[in-house]
Amino acid sequence: MQLADRLDQLGTETAFAVSGAAAAWAAQGNRVYPFHLGDMNLATPPNIVDAMNAAIADGKTGYCPAAGIPAQREALAADIGAGRGMALGPEHIVVQPGGKPVITKFIQTLMNPGDGVLYPNPGYPIYESQIEYFGGRPLPYRYHETPTGFGIDLDQLRALAPRARLLIYNNLQNPLGCESSPEEMAEIARLAVEHDLQVLSDEAYFEMRYSGTSTSIASLPGMAERTVILYTFSKKFAMTGWRLGCAAAPAPIAEQIAKINTNDESCTTHFVQEAGVEALRDPSGAAVLLAELERRRDAAVGALAEIDGISVATPEATFYLFPNVTDAMARMGFDDVGDFATAALQQTGVSFCTRHHFGTAQPEETDHYIRLAYSGISVVDIEDGLGNLAAWVAST
Amino acid sequence: MQLADRLDQLGTETAFAVSGAAAAWAAQGNRVYPFHLGDMNLATPPNIVDAMNAAIADGKTGYCPAAGIPAQREALAADIGAGRGMALGPEHIVVQPGGKPVITKFIQTLMNPGDGVLYPNPGYPIYESQIEYFGGRPLPYRYHETPTGFGIDLDQLRALAPRARLLIYNNLQNPLGCESSPEEMAEIARLAVEHDLQVLSDEAYFEMRYSGTSTSIASLPGMAERTVILYTFSKKFAMTGWRLGCAAAPAPIAEQIAKINTNDESCTTHFVQEAGVEALRDPSGAAVLLAELERRRDAAVGALAEIDGISVATPEATFYLFPNVTDAMARMGFDDVGDFATAALQQTGVSFCTRHHFGTAQPEETDHYIRLAYSGISVVDIEDGLGNLAAWVAST
Repeated sequence: MQLADRLDQLGTETAFAVSGAAAAWAAQGNRVYPFHLGDMNLATPPNIVDAMNAAIADGKTGYCPAAGIPAQREALAADIGAGRGMALGPEHIVVQPGGKPVITKFIQTLMNPGDGVLYPNPGYPIYESQIEYFGGRPLPYRYHETPTGFGIDLDQLRALAPRARLLIYNNLQNPLGCESSPEEMAEIARLAVEHDLQVLSDEAYFEMRYSGTSTSIASLPGMAERTVILYTFSKKFAMTGWRLGCAAAPAPIAEQIAKINTNDESCTTHFVQEAGVEALRDPSGAAVLLAELERRRDAAVGALAEIDGISVATPEATFYLFPNVTDAMARMGFDDVGDFATAALQQTGVSFCTRHHFGTAQPEETDHYIRLAYSGISVVDIEDGLGNLAAWVAST
Repeated sequence: MQLADRLDQLGTETAFAVSGAAAAWAAQGNRVYPFHLGDMNLATPPNIVDAMNAAIADGKTGYCPAAGIPAQREALAADIGAGRGMALGPEHIVVQPGGKPVITKFIQTLMNPGDGVLYPNPGYPIYESQIEYFGGRPLPYRYHETPTGFGIDLDQLRALAPRARLLIYNNLQNPLGCESSPEEMAEIARLAVEHDLQVLSDEAYFEMRYSGTSTSIASLPGMAERTVILYTFSKKFAMTGWRLGCAAAPAPIAEQIAKINTNDESCTTHFVQEAGVEALRDPSGAAVLLAELERRRDAAVGALAEIDGISVATPEATFYLFPNVTDAMARMGFDDVGDFATAALQQTGVSFCTRHHFGTAQPEETDHYIRLAYSGISVVDIEDGLGNLAAWVAST
């Protein structure tokens, strides 16, 4: 058998290998503290489950429109519009089985082979995979560490922008946990307008914040008509495994994305959309989840602050930390952050991803970083695990 | 904004326009008899819904493996293998959000741009759409009417096969409702082996039959290693809107399809897969659904037999009828089967698709056909609607 050539360009999420290593270590009878997963060990609010069952009892088990059921599209338009100060209607909404499908459908709808695409590095690895799979030219842009987190290297972005036709922007960033200042976001929007870029704004963590207010780049002048928003129920309502999200896009783009839906999966699970309508009608369960995540953030940041040679700012959003471990590694004699991660798992049970799981490091990078997710681990286990990590770092 | 060029090659299911016309007619206060939908107005068996809720209560609301949960892959391997006399293991199974995603993933995994792809015409329109979208060369093969249904024009298939690298085969066929004789299937398999074709066997209706036994072309000599089976829960368990199916494929192909899953949608809804495990464990509800569909088939075939100028064989499988309406149209003065369908809706309320919704008619076609689906309409409404149709045809 001969596989198609295009598969040579298809990437994946190498972070799954970390899950595999953690599971193998646990299977040998070892205790594992799972900081590698961006998944959640929290229950979906019960009103959402109840609404799904009511929909099934009401016969909502058949096909539904490719773009989504009208009630879901209307509820999403109202909610996304209100949260961003934008006027959106159901014609802008295309329901998807999760947030992730918006990435490939944005690329398929707007990128021709050979087009340059700006995307964050470190960043979510599926951006690069889909750009290359559909024949685009990857233009990764970098971040620098700041006293309060990370910022985009705007000089590099300005230098790359003339070669680009598309821009992927992930404010409230995975893996960095950072967000743009108003000035940074305004400059990115200015570049998008100046160079007539089509923009994917990945807003998967838009509502996962502990203070302040999120802003969408789509709400800035000149941006609504060139921006596709990636929206997901996954994080806000602890619905990662439900697979429910949407694209919010200019109507002609939304129409094409719906046509891709018709070809790819017909529609998103009918009764899951009815559950999504209820989630937006009564979102009170989301606040409970967010309060728990804030306790976890405080526990994790507090524990890391006790470790000599590891530093991290306190993110106001997402459920990720991206600590700088350069000094600890140097003192302990590690050159490679992957080796550091493997040793940490075996010595302390603490499992995490590293910078390597979020794109190819650029040559000028000298510091080492790891990524901790605290969405799938309790406060007690955060304290136990990071306590072990502190003891190991101090003793080595 | 400029859309990507590839969208010019993307087709769709034009049958949705028929749904729109029927809905518009109903909205004007008219009674509509819906024979146009391949959807089902039957409830999913309750044990499946109960298993889903037990899974949610058990916390199965997070991400799961891209290829599917182990229990679902094992259950599908056992069930698909047993029904086809094939030795399948979980490594051959990649769970999907429905059967349809297998079409695009088969094309993406095995077809290079420029490759010839044989596919049925009349046939499911997404085959042609995806072949063209990914740059393949469409090679439609035709059917001829027989006393018992329809058969593939093997002379044409033999003539086209040397130009092909892939073959799409849909035994138990939508829209024709026909199936291959053992001799026809053996000849198709022989051609696939002779010309080293990669085969998609769309088996969406494999278990939707009222007598006899289905055979998979994958079980014929030399075929298992070159065939991807499209399997779906949609029809057998009245789960069209749940979005659950799988590809059963040689392991190296399955691995690539799972990698596409990781890029496209992460995974299929976690608790829906748990429901799928239960569906295969206790499939007793499927027999109840099939018995109802058989009553509908008998009602529809019986009613059509009363109409002068319309002829149809009695299919033993699927829930479609593809009646020849040439004589009725000629007597009534219709040249175009689309006009006949529109007039039928307005005069009788009976809504159906036509041959035009299942691929471009070939020049040598002279007879006219319509497609009736009886999966979404009760026996009483079948009798009422087709009674109206008979009266209209007789009186015009």
